Amino acid sequence: MYSFPHKNILDADQFTKEDLDFFIEMTHRMKDIYQSGKAFGILRGKLLASLFFEASTRTRLSFESAMERLGGRLISTVGFQFSSISKGETLYDTMKMIEAYADIAVIRHPVEGSSRIAAGAVKMPVINAGDGAGQHPTQALLDLYTIKSEKNTLENITIGFIGDLKYGRTIHSLIKLLKFYKINAVLISPEELALPDSYKRDLKDYPMSIEETRDIKAIWDCDVIYVTRIQEERFADHKEYEKLKETYKINKELILASKKNTTVLHPLPRVSELSTDVDDLPNAAYFRQAEYGVVSRMALLCLCLGVPIREIQN
Amino acid sequence: MYSFPHKNILDADQFTKEDLDFFIEMTHRMKDIYQSGKAFGILRGKLLASLFFEASTRTRLSFESAMERLGGRLISTVGFQFSSISKGETLYDTMKMIEAYADIAVIRHPVEGSSRIAAGAVKMPVINAGDGAGQHPTQALLDLYTIKSEKNTLENITIGFIGDLKYGRTIHSLIKLLKFYKINAVLISPEELALPDSYKRDLKDYPMSIEETRDIKAIWDCDVIYVTRIQEERFADHKEYEKLKETYKINKELILASKKNTTVLHPLPRVSELSTDVDDLPNAAYFRQAEYGVVSRMALLCLCLGVPIREIQN
Amino acid sequence: MYSFPHKNILDADQFTKEDLDFFIEMTHRMKDIYQSGKAFGILRGKLLASLFFEASTRTRLSFESAMERLGGRLISTVGFQFSSISKGETLYDTMKMIEAYADIAVIRHPVEGSSRIAAGAVKMPVINAGDGAGQHPTQALLDLYTIKSEKNTLENITIGFIGDLKYGRTIHSLIKLLKFYKINAVLISPEELALPDSYKRDLKDYPMSIEETRDIKAIWDCDVIYVTRIQEERFADHKEYEKLKETYKINKELILASKKNTTVLHPLPRVSELSTDVDDLPNAAYFRQAEYGVVSRMALLCLCLGVPIREIQN
Repeated sequence: MYSFPHKNILDADQFTKEDLDFFIEMTHRMKDIYQSGKAFGILRGKLLASLFFEASTRTRLSFESAMERLGGRLISTVGFQFSSISKGETLYDTMKMIEAYADIAVIRHPVEGSSRIAAGAVKMPVINAGDGAGQHPTQALLDLYTIKSEKNTLENITIGFIGDLKYGRTIHSLIKLLKFYKINAVLISPEELALPDSYKRDLKDYPMSIEETRDIKAIWDCDVIYVTRIQEERFADHKEYEKLKETYKINKELILASKKNTTVLHPLPRVSELSTDVDDLPNAAYFRQAEYGVVSRMALLCLCLGVPIREIQN
Repeated sequence: MYSFPHKNILDADQFTKEDLDFFIEMTHRMKDIYQSGKAFGILRGKLLASLFFEASTRTRLSFESAMERLGGRLISTVGFQFSSISKGETLYDTMKMIEAYADIAVIRHPVEGSSRIAAGAVKMPVINAGDGAGQHPTQALLDLYTIKSEKNTLENITIGFIGDLKYGRTIHSLIKLLKFYKINAVLISPEELALPDSYKRDLKDYPMSIEETRDIKAIWDCDVIYVTRIQEERFADHKEYEKLKETYKINKELILASKKNTTVLHPLPRVSELSTDVDDLPNAAYFRQAEYGVVSRMALLCLCLGVPIREIQN
Repeated sequence: MYSFPHKNILDADQFTKEDLDFFIEMTHRMKDIYQSGKAFGILRGKLLASLFFEASTRTRLSFESAMERLGGRLISTVGFQFSSISKGETLYDTMKMIEAYADIAVIRHPVEGSSRIAAGAVKMPVINAGDGAGQHPTQALLDLYTIKSEKNTLENITIGFIGDLKYGRTIHSLIKLLKFYKINAVLISPEELALPDSYKRDLKDYPMSIEETRDIKAIWDCDVIYVTRIQEERFADHKEYEKLKETYKINKELILASKKNTTVLHPLPRVSELSTDVDDLPNAAYFRQAEYGVVSRMALLCLCLGVPIREIQN
């Protein structure tokens, strides 16, 4: 029988389709367990080290909530108040110490590749909660689970990705997971922010198909619209930024013109690219994403610690 | 039968006398439960989001202690390390996210009215732990409970308020609660720091009576003396401040000249307005205020979450 | 029968040999309890105030891990965000408040003697986690326990202390504990960083003997080598620092030339004084020190709170 082979969650490339299907199934099971009030106590006596070398309150609180919901315990630190490191301690040494204090670690770090170094130092499980320009795999996993939950399938659906597809880490990671499924991806962006060719080449032997367009009206035919921010600092010309920002803005009018059941997602925080007048539409699923995030991370904590979710009574 | 109608604690104006009497009764009951060692576990599995957008360690630790004493769990954040907000996220969006992570939120924020915005965004209970120049209702509630506990009544007692009655948020909120009771309030302050007329007008249809004086000796006839700080920044003239600071300073000599059982309160932290030579007198109740604060907040957490305190075994 | 007489852990001078033997025995027992999975719950319902007025993440997480491993609860604060203190509140007043919130406090403070002031303010137990140039007694206690555990005895062994013996607080405190045992201490340092005479005089009526040398090859005959950092800021002449730093550096070659079973310790964090090529040798015990630290602090929390470790089932 299949068993989840990963002790660490380090990047979106580490998973097979079988892993992802299992993750989705286990998260779904975890959601049921949680909703029936039986999650608390599953990680009784287990201790999570929540190591945020840079602040990311959203991600930190999501993981800490997940651990608390399971009845586990926390030790937590934010920033480079982490004084030993400012004294020149290596991440290797820090992790050797943390291993004496906790059973599993979640690490956020400004330097790409840090989570892999951290995981290499210790026997305990390590989860990458974002390392610089590198990976943020649990965001991609929770997005995958969100889409599956909202649409009830990952096959034969059209997903529109809109915004900054060139630099947007979130979308790059998500595509690495979605490629295993028979999905029609519509990439909607200004030319300057199109998905890099390297990502497109990676997809060629996979079921996912992609098409590209500059036209925001392409969202009208999508089952899922995944909106991301266009960052001003990517543009030399401020006027160009202002123009594109308005062109690729999602609002109520656009959603009402789309498929009736289209689902709007956004990794949050949003600024102006997603209007608040969408919030009250049933299509708006971006606040539910945070809930999916907690149950996804509850499942991941258990999977990494080797707790068999299937055997938990609910 | 009466049941507490408030899911949120946002300002001191929201309460009726019946609410306050019930709060006092439930806090008293909570104190007994706590002292008999039966409080731990009442909020088992419940998760408090402790959101301090500005630092207030005293208030934060008091709420967090209350939650831990009840066996509940915490996720906690301090300051605008809260990175999404620094990226421009609205409080509305932040709270929608927090709602996915926790069952109840306590919020401290530098901007007046923030707690009402926060509560409006979510279905979960929200408690205001101070928002700018606005309200800090749980401080007023714990002060009310402290006076009731120390004097064993809220009727026919004389309470002296001394210090800055013009800007002192603490006293403004407390008067809004005490007005329902047959209390003689003696307002002792320099003219420049007298209670604003608007507050006096609000009291005219209530049992509480007020008199004003500049003379600190008025404390001699009080059953309770509530001391607050005079802040230097309120004065254009530094000499004027120095003079008043000395005039309105409470010390052992003054307390020994007062009623034998007079109770001295102070919201803390104190600077020079309350001499440390008072600390050893039995009249000094300001350190006990911190203990009343914890049980008050234990009761409020339960009331907001709809946990019936009356039905808890002790 | 002997019972541990200390409610507070404030400095290394407070202990008798009987206290230390008891501490070692109880920590050993705690380690067994922990490893058999029975530690969680011993401090159920107890609340630790973790008060780090200056950041020391290593020490803070070690204590917090210890409390969580015992099933206790935490309230925690780091730095002078501790806003009341920035408003001029005394440590005395702060501790009176904390006493209302918690059952035991661990305090780290930049000012020498602070932990004694803190302990004097309250009835609850207080543990000093380092106060300025003053004491850090729990580091010394965990080092004592580490040596006993690694060598299985504290009698008739040779311990080499290498590095900055003049300013190194860690070694000063540890010597105060080791002096009760028949140990041969070899002090290896440059002349400028030799152990001050006052410490040597203190040892004259105790079983421990000391000898001094400038020669790093003295480690070859040691059963334990305790390495500490040489800090650049101690030297007026940068070249002198660079020379000494190289002279008193421990690496694999030196350890392989030493006694086969010699144990290498370091309080961490390390910089260049202890080469990473030592890490893979069985002699390297410095990462295990962190584990000994957690069980030591688990034992101390129980001892200070009066929980009889001997009576705990495992």
